[in-house]
Amino acid sequence: MKALIFDLDGTLVDTVYAHVIAWQQALAEAGMFIEGRRLHRLIGMSGDLFTRSATLELDRDISLSESKAIQDRHGKLFSKLLPEPRLLPGARELMRFLREKSIPFGIATSGRRPEINPALDKLGLGPDAVVVERREVAHGKPEPDLFEACRQLLDVRAEESFVVGDAVWDLLAARRAGMLGIGMMSGGYGEDELNKAGAFRVYKDPADLRRSLDELGMLHS
Amino acid sequence: MKALIFDLDGTLVDTVYAHVIAWQQALAEAGMFIEGRRLHRLIGMSGDLFTRSATLELDRDISLSESKAIQDRHGKLFSKLLPEPRLLPGARELMRFLREKSIPFGIATSGRRPEINPALDKLGLGPDAVVVERREVAHGKPEPDLFEACRQLLDVRAEESFVVGDAVWDLLAARRAGMLGIGMMSGGYGEDELNKAGAFRVYKDPADLRRSLDELGMLHS
Repeated sequence: MKALIFDLDGTLVDTVYAHVIAWQQALAEAGMFIEGRRLHRLIGMSGDLFTRSATLELDRDISLSESKAIQDRHGKLFSKLLPEPRLLPGARELMRFLREKSIPFGIATSGRRPEINPALDKLGLGPDAVVVERREVAHGKPEPDLFEACRQLLDVRAEESFVVGDAVWDLLAARRAGMLGIGMMSGGYGEDELNKAGAFRVYKDPADLRRSLDELGMLHS
Repeated sequence: MKALIFDLDGTLVDTVYAHVIAWQQALAEAGMFIEGRRLHRLIGMSGDLFTRSATLELDRDISLSESKAIQDRHGKLFSKLLPEPRLLPGARELMRFLREKSIPFGIATSGRRPEINPALDKLGLGPDAVVVERREVAHGKPEPDLFEACRQLLDVRAEESFVVGDAVWDLLAARRAGMLGIGMMSGGYGEDELNKAGAFRVYKDPADLRRSLDELGMLHS
């Protein structure tokens, strides 16, 4: 195995719970109550698909402009809740370790610049880092576009690339891209949920993943 | 089976995600960063045990007065985040149904009055309802005291009582009280995590539980 393609939210930065609350408040302001658990399990989808999926069971159709307004409001509430991103344990050290070992890696995120810049800074990822953001591809997760674009930039084959993500949507998109998925429990999914979605291995957080790179066949001496 | 003993937070009201954020902020203000997933999995413990467990791995001891200050701060942040409790789907209807069918039930919560009063009101539970709160027993969950006190008020035996809760701490306390546990996914745990903690059955939310009372042997005639 040659390369690692990372999701960002919930995988390297601790943002999932704040996203749940921000989505719940944004939807509530639009008159829609959706419980936390359901929102939690939808996070990691692209924003468009998210609002459509979240409101699907409410017996109420949602227009594209309404969806856009809720997404904007979510963004504002989210930055109020979490003005500064917090890295998950071992995230920065993992990035540094991969660079030192010359293991190719990239970030493929449903987030957008400039919102993701503070997280990339904290991870120590400069302008030379391989980062694919939502805007650069036609479709968000669980479509495979983000991972596929990142793989091309890294110039590796799908079958020698791992996708590392915290949501079942990462694992679904990984399988559709022909890549093996690694589940991260740091987004709040249980280990079995990630395994059942097809994760080859499941780790607690980036520190746990770094300690386990040998069992992934990533350390070729 | 004769009686149902309910946890409140995450089981009948949708409060778990706001609790995660409130704990995370309160701890961060005290200089301690703990990731969302870990806080999520500790919720449902009594507050004292929670702060001690949460800070255990931080290589830093916490005094009783510091723990008390963090708990107070959590309470304030929580009511700012969620000024009004929201019921989980079908919670009020479940309470009404149990009353109509004369099935004995009670609430056994780590919460305290007056904080829990708005939730009890929304559930339609008046002064005649059986409610045991944290203050009325010596030890919070995962000690069995709350469930044991509720069982005594309901005047049923342990082996004919189900405990309904969303956290592994409810299921652990239920087993220690000699009662069968029913897991609720509405607090954000995965189904397998609840099954592995000993849940006899797992349901999505109160509406799902109500539709399934027959498979619990609760409907006699």
